[in-house]
Amino acid sequence: MPTPFRRGASTAAALLAIVAPLAAARAQQPAGLAPREVPAHSLPVPTTVSPEMQRIIAMPLRPGWNTPPTTAEGWRAAQEAGAAAARQALPALAQRLRVRVEPTVIAGVKAYTITPETIPPENRERLLVHVHGGCYVLNPAEAALGEAIFMAGLGGFRVISVDYRMPPEAYFPAALDDVVAVWKATAANTDPRNMAIFGSSAGGALTLEAVLRAKAEGLPLPAAIAPGTPMADVSGPGDSFRTNALVDNVLVSPDGFCDAATRFYADGHDLSDPLLSPVYGDLRNFPPTILTTGTRDLLLSNTVRMHRGLRQAGVEAVLQVYEGQSHAQFYRDDTAPETREAFAEIAGFFNKHLGR
Amino acid sequence: MPTPFRRGASTAAALLAIVAPLAAARAQQPAGLAPREVPAHSLPVPTTVSPEMQRIIAMPLRPGWNTPPTTAEGWRAAQEAGAAAARQALPALAQRLRVRVEPTVIAGVKAYTITPETIPPENRERLLVHVHGGCYVLNPAEAALGEAIFMAGLGGFRVISVDYRMPPEAYFPAALDDVVAVWKATAANTDPRNMAIFGSSAGGALTLEAVLRAKAEGLPLPAAIAPGTPMADVSGPGDSFRTNALVDNVLVSPDGFCDAATRFYADGHDLSDPLLSPVYGDLRNFPPTILTTGTRDLLLSNTVRMHRGLRQAGVEAVLQVYEGQSHAQFYRDDTAPETREAFAEIAGFFNKHLGR
Repeated sequence: MPTPFRRGASTAAALLAIVAPLAAARAQQPAGLAPREVPAHSLPVPTTVSPEMQRIIAMPLRPGWNTPPTTAEGWRAAQEAGAAAARQALPALAQRLRVRVEPTVIAGVKAYTITPETIPPENRERLLVHVHGGCYVLNPAEAALGEAIFMAGLGGFRVISVDYRMPPEAYFPAALDDVVAVWKATAANTDPRNMAIFGSSAGGALTLEAVLRAKAEGLPLPAAIAPGTPMADVSGPGDSFRTNALVDNVLVSPDGFCDAATRFYADGHDLSDPLLSPVYGDLRNFPPTILTTGTRDLLLSNTVRMHRGLRQAGVEAVLQVYEGQSHAQFYRDDTAPETREAFAEIAGFFNKHLGR
Repeated sequence: MPTPFRRGASTAAALLAIVAPLAAARAQQPAGLAPREVPAHSLPVPTTVSPEMQRIIAMPLRPGWNTPPTTAEGWRAAQEAGAAAARQALPALAQRLRVRVEPTVIAGVKAYTITPETIPPENRERLLVHVHGGCYVLNPAEAALGEAIFMAGLGGFRVISVDYRMPPEAYFPAALDDVVAVWKATAANTDPRNMAIFGSSAGGALTLEAVLRAKAEGLPLPAAIAPGTPMADVSGPGDSFRTNALVDNVLVSPDGFCDAATRFYADGHDLSDPLLSPVYGDLRNFPPTILTTGTRDLLLSNTVRMHRGLRQAGVEAVLQVYEGQSHAQFYRDDTAPETREAFAEIAGFFNKHLGR
């Protein structure tokens, strides 16, 4: 007999509260359950996305995905190469999306302000904090700014993007410390009910970790958050690490550069600590959350597990999954209709929840 | 230069309305874009789901998935085998979930009423119409009722399940005609603001098709709908038909029994007709919609494309994606916590939108 289901609860939160947490399943190995053998196959580029997105989906696997740096100098060279490439591309992107980018320092932490040429009236009092991705190690300085510029330009929001410290300069929890320091300082000057935090990949995880930290320290919470394809569990489990291995052309495989980078940041710390794997955190009373991923994303499972965890905790959490996209491909090309759709969804969610 | 993005729109609907419809991409073949070659690999049963769900995920590929019947007699035998198995299992299921099942006829269409032993006060005036799945050909009579019983028992709703005509008795659009006839008759006796339509797979498609038909005929619309993993596009496209081929252990492959059954029902009719592939329909003014799928679902793309289409049309549409599940595995085992979670989400969505 199943456990009795309590009838009459009138909200999803009440109904979900009695569902046994799935985290309990984590420790259990499915002993004796046979794996599925999948033969080699060829995946055509889908016809169900725009031509711009088709070009992104058709790109080969990221070069060097399985040959990450093995020394601090090697990681530093990778960081600098990314920043140099971004410095080249940024002026044209900022011009196309009509935003002004300026470096600043907030609470001792390097950051950038991104200001749209035109700010719609309902956004005048609003401020977003952006946390970049890059597996906790990549995308310093200008390399952090693409997603922030998309949000500022497409959504008409003022954005502060945090250029948090990364290895080999500083290790866990330095990145989180910096994000929280910027959050605390900006939320002291702007009503946090008019603020949101967003970011993808490691930036999505840091967004979630910052809320866990803010809850623990009694800091104000943002009115909403938008973690894109968050690295919500870096401890290993997650079905799409297998189903989308060598399907996702960005992260490619759980045994690739991103895993190596995360271990470099964690510096021996337990990878299942909720401040590295927020899916294991106490998610009650999280602000409204919009999550974004794609069907080919190596972190599809991380994203949907995070969504389920938030829903089980009674949080207003919505999920956007885009056809055919690998990891974080919703902010690759500002001319792709899917890019504009993804940022319109996030902007709409912020418009719904900020200033209430 | 990109097309200018209109700033200042304050709702998601307004922002999304200017996104170019992706349907335009459908006709374009990605000529010259290389497919991705995926080597053979072994997929372990994930540790991130309950033990009950692990057993479902570990099941081998559905026997005979690629040897569908080729004659009307063969399909009829498959129908009858399914109904006979269901007749055996139903009494225990109905008892466990404390519902009463009775056959009836509504507007000349065979149906069943499913009545929970206890109906919570807020559901006394509410009535759900259920449309079963089975690729438009399978699951007649009692075989239709599992999902309906789960919804009635777990959610505390009165449910009418439509035992619509199927081939070889009748072909497209007979199933839809029957669903719409039952909808019209029940919505004449119950305030449609207190009603919803739900169902999965072909039943999810028929749910969407019934709304298209109701809009076209000026019938009242339900207050909400819950299409589970809908066969929203049976004309071929959809990335997960390839990425999840031989990963999904229920539908297994787009070249399997479900495709054969759908062609049997369509009987030569254009498969991209919105009354067979509702993703191509006019989705404006659809009622609030909750969609459910799993990361291994062959119809993951069908589901997320339907979600995107609804959102582009300005509809309140939410998406639930469950870790590791293949097609429609959210209603396999009433003791699995994921089953209760999925129906709690749908019940919560109905509670939010019915009776407003």
